[in-house]
Amino acid sequence: MAWVYLSRVVHGPCAALSALIESVGVLEAARAVRESALPESLREPTERRRGIDTAARDLELIERLGGRVVTPDDPEWPAWRLLGLTQLDAGRDRDGAIPLVLWVRGPRSLLESSERAVAVVGARCSTAYGNQVTGEIVSELAAQGWTIVSGAAFGIDGMAHRAALAVDGPTIAVLACGVDRPYPAQHERLIDEIADTGLVVSEYPPGAAARKHQFLARNRLIAALADGVLVVEAGLRSGARNTVKWSRRLGRPALAIPGSVNSAASVGCHRMIRDGEALLVTRAEEVIDEAGPLRLSLPDGARADNPADALSGDEALIFEALPVIGSRRPSELADQSGLPLSAVRAVLPALELAGLIGAGENGWHRTASPRSTTPR
Amino acid sequence: MAWVYLSRVVHGPCAALSALIESVGVLEAARAVRESALPESLREPTERRRGIDTAARDLELIERLGGRVVTPDDPEWPAWRLLGLTQLDAGRDRDGAIPLVLWVRGPRSLLESSERAVAVVGARCSTAYGNQVTGEIVSELAAQGWTIVSGAAFGIDGMAHRAALAVDGPTIAVLACGVDRPYPAQHERLIDEIADTGLVVSEYPPGAAARKHQFLARNRLIAALADGVLVVEAGLRSGARNTVKWSRRLGRPALAIPGSVNSAASVGCHRMIRDGEALLVTRAEEVIDEAGPLRLSLPDGARADNPADALSGDEALIFEALPVIGSRRPSELADQSGLPLSAVRAVLPALELAGLIGAGENGWHRTASPRSTTPR
Repeated sequence: MAWVYLSRVVHGPCAALSALIESVGVLEAARAVRESALPESLREPTERRRGIDTAARDLELIERLGGRVVTPDDPEWPAWRLLGLTQLDAGRDRDGAIPLVLWVRGPRSLLESSERAVAVVGARCSTAYGNQVTGEIVSELAAQGWTIVSGAAFGIDGMAHRAALAVDGPTIAVLACGVDRPYPAQHERLIDEIADTGLVVSEYPPGAAARKHQFLARNRLIAALADGVLVVEAGLRSGARNTVKWSRRLGRPALAIPGSVNSAASVGCHRMIRDGEALLVTRAEEVIDEAGPLRLSLPDGARADNPADALSGDEALIFEALPVIGSRRPSELADQSGLPLSAVRAVLPALELAGLIGAGENGWHRTASPRSTTPR
Repeated sequence: MAWVYLSRVVHGPCAALSALIESVGVLEAARAVRESALPESLREPTERRRGIDTAARDLELIERLGGRVVTPDDPEWPAWRLLGLTQLDAGRDRDGAIPLVLWVRGPRSLLESSERAVAVVGARCSTAYGNQVTGEIVSELAAQGWTIVSGAAFGIDGMAHRAALAVDGPTIAVLACGVDRPYPAQHERLIDEIADTGLVVSEYPPGAAARKHQFLARNRLIAALADGVLVVEAGLRSGARNTVKWSRRLGRPALAIPGSVNSAASVGCHRMIRDGEALLVTRAEEVIDEAGPLRLSLPDGARADNPADALSGDEALIFEALPVIGSRRPSELADQSGLPLSAVRAVLPALELAGLIGAGENGWHRTASPRSTTPR
């Protein structure tokens, strides 16, 4: 109830509030917001709606939709997926913050669905070419067990979801409005279908309308929930370029499909490839090659023969904190790395997925020989 | 006559012979070859044909065709264009050598025509898309005074020449056979047309047939005579990739046009872009941006705000040998840089074209402020 109340109050990501919750707990944070017993940075974002508490009704509503609220306390919370956003926090914009909660419809576990996922996004005004390529690549990715993350928009987004559904593949639609308010309205049926077998996700509470800045914030979630972003078609000012920017800030590969130089719907893709913002790919195999688990931690386009060499930030600290032989418990790793326990716990699964560490009775250990990367 | 005799004997590039000529002069070199008074390295390449002297007949033949032999002694010899090949010599393959002579048909000066030139090459099995894009980009380049260099082959090559001819633009066809033996035969009329207003060039003597390895050697001349290579379409095993390789070895930009991922004729372009061998471009303006004179000396993809910083090899040595204020004569630059006078003379025009130096009564001087490069 406290989470739901706060989600309604701040209406989207709020780094300062997430930090307050992390330090005093969600109940105490909710009390502080209610009473406006807050540091300066939190007054403004909470002032307007702190008097509104529709938590009970919101919960009832989401349950009636067959949905749920997933909070950072839940086992389903995709902690290590969203960790990159925490690291961006320190930085620039409010929109880069970790989501407060996620409103979710659909039968799958968000944590598991996002474990091997590719975001497929692009032009709303897609062409027959873009639709066809989306269909082929998504079918192949979905058939190989990759979850397709997209934004349920017209054009490439919708095509990506549909192609995944067509092969019974998992797909996640991340909305910029409440999960009860399908946007665009013409995609109501598509979004319902996604909710039936995949997941519909939003950080905005039920009833929230889609506002412009929310699309930009939504794009960061699309990027965060996937191993990489594939842009199939994009005009010069496409929102896909924004998603690519988030992907790169999160250190994940951004990929783009080339097309005819006569097609306005490929201009954005060509520009991103030309400017080194995205790597040219032409088929599913190349997408997997780039978005595969070992690429996870590689910063912008970097490569490494030994994946451990490519680690940075918390991942590097925690890997370094593990002895070459022997195991360590998370609490020991926290002590040794100087990182909070929550950060240690969030990073360990990523290192495991990359084949660098394993878990045993006595805690975590380095694996004997990390899987080597595919040479290009 | 000595040059022509030697051209017939070695039948293509021969670094060892070029070096011998450079050191003892062409007459003495011809005598040595005739008498087989040669170092080991020159015995084998000259043994088979040193007894054949058809120089007088060859000269008569080329004159009858309205052509000429251009030798390194001639003012028309594109010395600084071919300098890169001299520098490759030290290295690996015989095919990388500077040409001994060039057999030329056509009314233009080879030196002047190759001053602002783009090589446009690609698939013999081009598509309607490739032909259309070649036509548009070449028309624009030719209209802006760029010479189009290509190989007169079917597909993109032929289209590139035709598009240049259509706007009365200068175009150079570099053949892998004698200039009197049009290859492919079906392009005889096209090649004649090019010879009427542009240039048809070969390093092989009249009558020489097109052999496989000669195409690879020919590709290096296409790359060497241009400021950059543009590949419009290329299959996976296209010869265009070989031309791109030469372009990169010569430190000049390699550019490629994207296309449909469904088109086999674009697979090679996509591969080169993906592997960082070529930069994606979509229109003439972008080609000029990359191939413009200031890119000349930049090695593989490097950029610099101050063009002088980007110099390397002989160009850097000679630029450094110039005082910040004051002039130096070529002989002084040779003394100071430790380079032979011929190398100094070959490099100076390139530095001038890059806007880094100028010539005056007292020799060469650094320009006050080098033109700055276009930011990307």
